[in-house]
Amino acid sequence: MKIAILPGDGIGPEVTEQARRVLDVLSLPGLTLFEGDVGGIAYKRHGHPLPQETLDMARAADAVLFGAVGDPECDDLPREHRPEQAILGLRSELGLFANLRPAAGYPGLEDMSSLKPEVARGIDLLVVRELNGDVYFGDKGERDSDGGREGWDAMSYNEAEVRRIAHTGFLAAQKRRKRLTSVDKANVLETSRIWRETVIEVAAEYPDVELDHMYVDNAAMQMVRSPGQFDVILTGNLFGDILSDQASACVGSIGLLASASLGERQTEYGTFGLYEPIHGSAPDIAGQGKANPIAAILSLAMLLRHSLGRETEAGRIERAVSTVVASDVRGADLGGTASTGEIGDAVLRALN
Amino acid sequence: MKIAILPGDGIGPEVTEQARRVLDVLSLPGLTLFEGDVGGIAYKRHGHPLPQETLDMARAADAVLFGAVGDPECDDLPREHRPEQAILGLRSELGLFANLRPAAGYPGLEDMSSLKPEVARGIDLLVVRELNGDVYFGDKGERDSDGGREGWDAMSYNEAEVRRIAHTGFLAAQKRRKRLTSVDKANVLETSRIWRETVIEVAAEYPDVELDHMYVDNAAMQMVRSPGQFDVILTGNLFGDILSDQASACVGSIGLLASASLGERQTEYGTFGLYEPIHGSAPDIAGQGKANPIAAILSLAMLLRHSLGRETEAGRIERAVSTVVASDVRGADLGGTASTGEIGDAVLRALN
Ligand SMILES: CC(C)[C@H](C(=O)O)[C@@H](O)C(=O)O
Ligand SMILES: CC(C)[C@H](C(=O)O)[C@@H](O)C(=O)O
Repeated sequence: MKIAILPGDGIGPEVTEQARRVLDVLSLPGLTLFEGDVGGIAYKRHGHPLPQETLDMARAADAVLFGAVGDPECDDLPREHRPEQAILGLRSELGLFANLRPAAGYPGLEDMSSLKPEVARGIDLLVVRELNGDVYFGDKGERDSDGGREGWDAMSYNEAEVRRIAHTGFLAAQKRRKRLTSVDKANVLETSRIWRETVIEVAAEYPDVELDHMYVDNAAMQMVRSPGQFDVILTGNLFGDILSDQASACVGSIGLLASASLGERQTEYGTFGLYEPIHGSAPDIAGQGKANPIAAILSLAMLLRHSLGRETEAGRIERAVSTVVASDVRGADLGGTASTGEIGDAVLRALN
Repeated sequence: MKIAILPGDGIGPEVTEQARRVLDVLSLPGLTLFEGDVGGIAYKRHGHPLPQETLDMARAADAVLFGAVGDPECDDLPREHRPEQAILGLRSELGLFANLRPAAGYPGLEDMSSLKPEVARGIDLLVVRELNGDVYFGDKGERDSDGGREGWDAMSYNEAEVRRIAHTGFLAAQKRRKRLTSVDKANVLETSRIWRETVIEVAAEYPDVELDHMYVDNAAMQMVRSPGQFDVILTGNLFGDILSDQASACVGSIGLLASASLGERQTEYGTFGLYEPIHGSAPDIAGQGKANPIAAILSLAMLLRHSLGRETEAGRIERAVSTVVASDVRGADLGGTASTGEIGDAVLRALN
């Protein structure tokens, strides 16, 4: 079993370090760890945010544990050298087409949300976002027009792309509350029309899952009004980017939320994937021991479950995290004073 | 002065009727009203959701007072005959490029929001949404691909389009708290890169307005976490669709929110525009006297201000509405029992 660890920028290294301590304690037999540079730090050391060496390392692994990328010192670089390109490059090069972002309130933490506690308490949803298509990876460029310089981007989805992610969504719904809301803008976009028709077609294979459709503007509204109505939200790359961040904000405690990006490749133990906290590189607090490592630790749990078939260990980690979150060991993000390392210590103690 | 009234579908007619009563009481000299069919009702009567006659009537007017379109009985029609096409058609045919959607909490109604009252209380923002471009009005269609049928839509903005709406945004910010947040996805889209560069260029003409830029995913997050940070949000058609609905939901009392869609044409008295409540046709409560007419009445106030230069009357209506909202005359949407007509009566009484 091989895990590539890519700590990246900002608070990435310090939160990933705590996840690695957890991994060490589990002492899984036959596990080899590799570590590579990615993002701003990779650009500074190797001239590219996603060096070939890092990409090769990720490809050779069964799973990637990712920290965060983003570095204000790189803001003025041309787009292809900016840290974010590393994550876009990994998604397309590794074929990571399915982004799973669970968002659920932790009992006792409802108050961290800006939503009323009774609303926040009800949130328990999973955003399944397509990650290899849409306007993200279509042709794009600049051209002259009557109105001066014009920027353009091509948006599209074909049936095969939608089918693939729809199956991911329906399978996930079967393991949850069996409700799937497909979000699109089919009243305006042809891309969405194909999306909707294909989702309806795939739904026939999952008669036990209740499907509904929502326009993205309405979904953004409902996510504020009554987020508890959602179970699985299935959507495209662009709408998923927006709605999954909105969902995280609704939960409130963003330092606790993890994500998985899965590919098609099956490893010996599960599905190849990349795992990362929802929070970014947070350069303003980097290196100060203020970051909450829980999201990184929960990313490791997702990695063990989906890519290494280690459900038992994933469950152990998640229970340990629940214990810590319910205790008074809280980071600055949750109004407490515990440092990154102290939160890591507490999770290690709670592992059993 | 000519106003075209297009009540449309669902609760559109009943809320528009109350706005019309307010207009009658103001008895503006030299005002002529026209009324036309639009949406599902127009399709049923004339075979098209936006009949030529309605379009001509709107064109000949100084302003359009619009109710709502949307009718479940039309859901299975081909897209070009669906009620929503009427509003898209009006926007493009009338050159309505600037959508202004103010969202502010009413004192005493903070509790209607699913956000905590202390968060909801802080909301006082204006979304300035571009309405004639973006992926809404680009080429689109279906083609064959390796992955089966593929839906595609072309997204673009050119400098002239961005400049025009940016001026609207900066001018609005100058009359408010002088802060403008431009929302884009410039880390992924070329359309957004031109958007951002052009907004920066236009900003030079408004040195008194503080400009910042936010990615749309972050904006959706910030809108939940601390919506009070926003003054004017300037954004494109697609992101504006999502964020303005999200902002309305944050305020909570959607039956109170109005919008203006302004064109380039100057009338004798102001700027040509179309005015409509944010809420849709709400077919489930249509014809039952349960709809809140305040959004329609506030749409009329915006019409008087922007298109007819009647600031005095606009202010009178807005003060009357504030009085009613602060009173115990509340519709079902705000937990009260007042009917559409009773709320209209109360506004008429409060006019002075
Ligand atoms: C950094 C950016 C390109 C990326 C995206 O838009 O996908 C990020 O927002 C995310 O959601 O992982
Ligand atoms: C009905 C629909 C086409 C429209 C839009 O997407 O613009 C609506 O959501 C709006 O915001 O007015």
